[in-house]
Amino acid sequence: MNDIFSALESEVRSYSRTWPTTFDRAQGSYLYSEDGKPYLDFFAGAGALNYGHNNPALKRKLLEYIERDGVTHGLDQATVAKREFLETLDEKLLKPRGLDYKVQFPGPTGTNSVESALKLARKITGRESIISFTNAFHGMTLGSLSVTGNSMKRGGAGIPLVHATPMPYDNYFDGQFPDFLYFERLLADSGSGLNEPAAVIVETLQGEGGINSSRPEWLRGLRELCDKHGMLLIVDDVQMGCGRTGPFFSFEQAGITPDIVCLSKSIGGYGSPLAITLIKSELDVWEPGEHNGTFRGNNPAFVTASEALRLYWSDDELEKGTLAKGERVGKVLSDIEDKYEGAVSKGRGLARGLGFEDVEVAGKISKAAFERQLILETAGPKDEVVKIMPPLTLSDEELDQGLHIITESVQSVLG
Amino acid sequence: MNDIFSALESEVRSYSRTWPTTFDRAQGSYLYSEDGKPYLDFFAGAGALNYGHNNPALKRKLLEYIERDGVTHGLDQATVAKREFLETLDEKLLKPRGLDYKVQFPGPTGTNSVESALKLARKITGRESIISFTNAFHGMTLGSLSVTGNSMKRGGAGIPLVHATPMPYDNYFDGQFPDFLYFERLLADSGSGLNEPAAVIVETLQGEGGINSSRPEWLRGLRELCDKHGMLLIVDDVQMGCGRTGPFFSFEQAGITPDIVCLSKSIGGYGSPLAITLIKSELDVWEPGEHNGTFRGNNPAFVTASEALRLYWSDDELEKGTLAKGERVGKVLSDIEDKYEGAVSKGRGLARGLGFEDVEVAGKISKAAFERQLILETAGPKDEVVKIMPPLTLSDEELDQGLHIITESVQSVLG
Amino acid sequence: MNDIFSALESEVRSYSRTWPTTFDRAQGSYLYSEDGKPYLDFFAGAGALNYGHNNPALKRKLLEYIERDGVTHGLDQATVAKREFLETLDEKLLKPRGLDYKVQFPGPTGTNSVESALKLARKITGRESIISFTNAFHGMTLGSLSVTGNSMKRGGAGIPLVHATPMPYDNYFDGQFPDFLYFERLLADSGSGLNEPAAVIVETLQGEGGINSSRPEWLRGLRELCDKHGMLLIVDDVQMGCGRTGPFFSFEQAGITPDIVCLSKSIGGYGSPLAITLIKSELDVWEPGEHNGTFRGNNPAFVTASEALRLYWSDDELEKGTLAKGERVGKVLSDIEDKYEGAVSKGRGLARGLGFEDVEVAGKISKAAFERQLILETAGPKDEVVKIMPPLTLSDEELDQGLHIITESVQSVLG
Amino acid sequence: MNDIFSALESEVRSYSRTWPTTFDRAQGSYLYSEDGKPYLDFFAGAGALNYGHNNPALKRKLLEYIERDGVTHGLDQATVAKREFLETLDEKLLKPRGLDYKVQFPGPTGTNSVESALKLARKITGRESIISFTNAFHGMTLGSLSVTGNSMKRGGAGIPLVHATPMPYDNYFDGQFPDFLYFERLLADSGSGLNEPAAVIVETLQGEGGINSSRPEWLRGLRELCDKHGMLLIVDDVQMGCGRTGPFFSFEQAGITPDIVCLSKSIGGYGSPLAITLIKSELDVWEPGEHNGTFRGNNPAFVTASEALRLYWSDDELEKGTLAKGERVGKVLSDIEDKYEGAVSKGRGLARGLGFEDVEVAGKISKAAFERQLILETAGPKDEVVKIMPPLTLSDEELDQGLHIITESVQSVLG
Repeated sequence: MNDIFSALESEVRSYSRTWPTTFDRAQGSYLYSEDGKPYLDFFAGAGALNYGHNNPALKRKLLEYIERDGVTHGLDQATVAKREFLETLDEKLLKPRGLDYKVQFPGPTGTNSVESALKLARKITGRESIISFTNAFHGMTLGSLSVTGNSMKRGGAGIPLVHATPMPYDNYFDGQFPDFLYFERLLADSGSGLNEPAAVIVETLQGEGGINSSRPEWLRGLRELCDKHGMLLIVDDVQMGCGRTGPFFSFEQAGITPDIVCLSKSIGGYGSPLAITLIKSELDVWEPGEHNGTFRGNNPAFVTASEALRLYWSDDELEKGTLAKGERVGKVLSDIEDKYEGAVSKGRGLARGLGFEDVEVAGKISKAAFERQLILETAGPKDEVVKIMPPLTLSDEELDQGLHIITESVQSVLG
Repeated sequence: MNDIFSALESEVRSYSRTWPTTFDRAQGSYLYSEDGKPYLDFFAGAGALNYGHNNPALKRKLLEYIERDGVTHGLDQATVAKREFLETLDEKLLKPRGLDYKVQFPGPTGTNSVESALKLARKITGRESIISFTNAFHGMTLGSLSVTGNSMKRGGAGIPLVHATPMPYDNYFDGQFPDFLYFERLLADSGSGLNEPAAVIVETLQGEGGINSSRPEWLRGLRELCDKHGMLLIVDDVQMGCGRTGPFFSFEQAGITPDIVCLSKSIGGYGSPLAITLIKSELDVWEPGEHNGTFRGNNPAFVTASEALRLYWSDDELEKGTLAKGERVGKVLSDIEDKYEGAVSKGRGLARGLGFEDVEVAGKISKAAFERQLILETAGPKDEVVKIMPPLTLSDEELDQGLHIITESVQSVLG
Repeated sequence: MNDIFSALESEVRSYSRTWPTTFDRAQGSYLYSEDGKPYLDFFAGAGALNYGHNNPALKRKLLEYIERDGVTHGLDQATVAKREFLETLDEKLLKPRGLDYKVQFPGPTGTNSVESALKLARKITGRESIISFTNAFHGMTLGSLSVTGNSMKRGGAGIPLVHATPMPYDNYFDGQFPDFLYFERLLADSGSGLNEPAAVIVETLQGEGGINSSRPEWLRGLRELCDKHGMLLIVDDVQMGCGRTGPFFSFEQAGITPDIVCLSKSIGGYGSPLAITLIKSELDVWEPGEHNGTFRGNNPAFVTASEALRLYWSDDELEKGTLAKGERVGKVLSDIEDKYEGAVSKGRGLARGLGFEDVEVAGKISKAAFERQLILETAGPKDEVVKIMPPLTLSDEELDQGLHIITESVQSVLG
Repeated sequence: MNDIFSALESEVRSYSRTWPTTFDRAQGSYLYSEDGKPYLDFFAGAGALNYGHNNPALKRKLLEYIERDGVTHGLDQATVAKREFLETLDEKLLKPRGLDYKVQFPGPTGTNSVESALKLARKITGRESIISFTNAFHGMTLGSLSVTGNSMKRGGAGIPLVHATPMPYDNYFDGQFPDFLYFERLLADSGSGLNEPAAVIVETLQGEGGINSSRPEWLRGLRELCDKHGMLLIVDDVQMGCGRTGPFFSFEQAGITPDIVCLSKSIGGYGSPLAITLIKSELDVWEPGEHNGTFRGNNPAFVTASEALRLYWSDDELEKGTLAKGERVGKVLSDIEDKYEGAVSKGRGLARGLGFEDVEVAGKISKAAFERQLILETAGPKDEVVKIMPPLTLSDEELDQGLHIITESVQSVLG
């Protein structure tokens, strides 16, 4: 492809290899290459674009803010934009759900939020060990990487990743064994050799890990286990929050309240870097400045974040739409599952996946879809799952179009 | 102050306590509170606003890009904006300096860049240990924190920070002892107990650590030491790069070429999150996707970054201006040093500081300055240094005004 | 008790609290207190006295050696006594079993042997992580402690114990789930988050952990798993080797060959400090002096060790006797199991135990036995198991006497 | 040499390569090879044989004890032999020196004692980091190895050795810089990046590290530094205690009292495995059984230990003799130093060394001495020091004979 990328960009680049074209513009559910070709986007910035590309309502607010020279870079100074964000967050998210959280701005990315959560959990409990789950993904900085499952990414650390123990995620054994069988036993047995955990960190639905959805009763069981053993429960809602599974928080269905919640990706609304860490107010034991970060006050992102909350979370329309569209996706995936041996439909809401026994298939489908101008990522430890994550705001027509291409692409690969 | 901040924001908030007002707008060298009061900004977003707030030329490009629906969020997809950034970087920075670096987009913050650098250095060398320096600051995620000096921030980790050994920074003993005396001896002595280091990470001028400037000959000595012992040299130019000390890279004066360079803060130009890691091309051993990050492709920041490079780094005007203004600051600080026992003038370029033996003084001066509508941060392990970092683009009048307030504030505190 | 012990010995002392008398002499299966009271010893120095106290045949050899001024302290110098030990070991143990092991003298205690095994396994594989099992006990030095389960003992480390992951021991879930279900899945799943293990360390029968016996087929499965995933298999036979379970090595019944074997306790024969590490000859990649230890050449212990091998391992009489006596013990324990709700008979060979649901019971039985002049230790994470480990050389009468006291003591506690 | 050693003993063997003969008997200052050749021993079991080989007075007590079936193996049960040892220790060592120590039996080797000391220091302080010194040697188990300097031995760990930071030992810079310059500064500077240390572990004279002797004033300075910064002072007197430098404890000359003292090697008197850890009584916070070890109660060694204390530490004769003999050695070494460029006389008491700039020389001298039937070890990170450590009990004639061989051997190598 473009010379400059291969000549100058590090070998670490990845998506530019998967989708070998140069994009220029984007609007709603579409990305446009520089030669004007539209690509329907069922990837949505890995969950950072739940409200679509360059959402017009957010864009207007953003332009106004920039035009009027609103503060751009604010560290953690008090600003009008940040106040508005905090107020809106309180009014639209926390109060209606009865959540008593303090808000930390840990730096603008998901891994900043995860690192802050792990640090705080260790500080609160005086324990060092964290429980993570098989196939978890929490980020690339050293703390987050230690609770991430993927062996290739772990290998990049260059040092042994310690202080974390993986436990089997829901359905890791296809439901054949009681939930938490092993975990609970190790906790209860003072001779087990398991270091007493400060916290459990969990995604209610694993995106990068292969669109693995946990059941509400499993999450409730986990919450109970945490309470019983003095472990904090951290939900990493970086990818699955902001409505991806239907409700704003992915844990709402289960009726649980995490001790700490990590949010990023779509929280800024417009695809700009922003992250927050929600902390039960009684657990907010931070000293001033004990954790910081230069870009933790990305004010234009506060503006679009506030507007997104007002627009999409004042009522349950988006949530219902997501669930309804999710059903449509699910139906198509079930058909594929029925038709093709070794295919399995995964996920919930608009976090959907199509897994294949043959680990080569998903990549081929992604390639076939790209040829048909549909952007589809793969996921899972062996990239064996086609990941289907369109913007939540896409139209029914766009959804149908995308699902049609998926069906076609599967057919082109599997016959 | 504002209820919502104390009610809803975590206790970790810090600058909103230092400067207890709510800011609304910003332009050039000024921040404006919501009640319309202008504050002259000698803090510059901790170095993220070298070109001033909402720089009009960059703003125009940014608005155009947003208006025309340029890609906002791009992960590491190839985009027109990113291509332009890479080309401009190559043309304005790398080629003229004869630097053969590959560019990694490690995530949009300084600590992302540092983490990527540490991981890569370990991968390349197969060694685990990193040498950092006394009073270094490299970031808040676990890897970066382990090479950071500040004990309060280290304490936040909640686990022992290992795999790093601190060495004395230049002038740590006031020049009484040969450079690298201890470090070199430990390296040479196979019985010293020092784990063989993968890399040395250094700021050529420590900002957070108290505006400690290293000498060019010290940096050259460090480069030689690294070569001799097979250690990579990582320069963390997150705060001191982008012209803060005069030349674009803070290491140019010393005539050295680091193996890896971390850039963030002002690289985006407009104060938006962006970071890059520069890697000597022969050291670019990353596997595709081995390190990633959702917001590594913040495209609007590519646009302002490119324009900033074109505007300010096509000739040496900004560099000369920075050095000249730095001299002016230095003169005023020298006068203060001469006048007040225990005061010391520090820094170079427009990274300046005023240290005080009495560790209470700097905070009082910052407070007195704020009352005079000047934003001044403190730095150093005990916040004993007044940190003077105005935008590089401020006018001579603004500079004089700020220096006048500083002189006044010092006087008001010390008499 | 005796003033000097409580006045001068550290609070860490333990057995002197369990058996509050001062012992003076010992012979065969008996310890004698200083006031001449005989105590039948069903503890056998925690497995260090398999051939009884001050075994007359070994004693004669020992006295001769000391009398004739044989080398006492030899580090790893070549000595006549060591040569004889190596030759006897080869002839009596290795050759008859077709074992191609090199012998390391790692220092005179079990934990020295375990530490050497872990170091070597990491060196060979270039991996850092070790798999241990729930309720494992491998020693008190930092490396061994990290693979030990007991939380009280682990807590003594004062630093997080890392680089080890506990897996469920055989029957941890009462046989309800397939062996290695969890372990195998984590190994096979490249997204599991389990660091690739250098080795698995296992006791074929856990002594300290509560007399938990693993099945031969489980051990064979473990051997296969190790082969499949490039993990070395270390058998810690410190307590269960030297005939405790019948055959010399506790893994013989399973028909497996470990890569590394740790031996100590009874290997010296007379209760003197000695340990060896057996290493498959192709894995002996040590550099000269890479691991050492002052007392690794305890020559008088070589003399008694050689004699013990000659006396007891030239034929299968001891092995048969141990198995027969073990059966007798098993029968009595089964009767107790049948009679008392919550009691369970455990172990094999002469490593036997009586577990109780009520965790207070075992301690009471041990106390009751001591009043009846029988020495009985407890084991298990909550000291809930009475541990029955007489010398292998005790007479049938002594065995019956001891079993009678056990029955009586159980009765006195449980009615 | 002997087939069986190269055929069956691990490649890790070391001294059997240095002194390629097979020893059989030993008496006083002599080892005898199996073909009857006497070797004068200036190595003394690396300090484990301060009272000579098979010391007749101790031998008599040992034989009596074994003959009368005194308890051999006692774990930490109370025994008559142990009581006698505690009483004698109290009477001969602690009381006369006004030392209020509790005695822990941590297992029978030096590294057991060091591991117990490190664990306890961490437990007491709640800190994790330990300060060690350049060229320190403390043992081969993981905890001890982390505070040991030698890079070859450290490499054997197979995992990064962390939680310890090396500081320059006394005279590391030939007295050109103030003591503790770097260490003190790092402690005082809250931004230094040094983890707050739980303890400092030090040998007052480094044996393995190359016979480096610290000055009393340096040790006093270290004691003060520890007090000032809440660090415990651990003296590892495993090799240099028991009179090696003159007084029983090597720190007596400096007039300091360590918080924890590690003793092993010659404490048992006869060369048998024994170790103790002395703990200031107010610091004895161990829980019963929190640290243990099978061979911590090596009762025959208690017997010889008690007798050695009575024989040699009831008056100051041995101490005076050691100092006088040390002077004699020193004189000869000074002559050599004067005569040969690059030779340097090192050490004090009867822990003496002869260092050479050319790192090949010491090994050659050791070889030349062995040919002349003198056993001489080398020490130092590059084995560049000839280590001279005869039994303290050798006669003046034996001393002169040995020194004569040393002079000859030096001459044969250097001309």
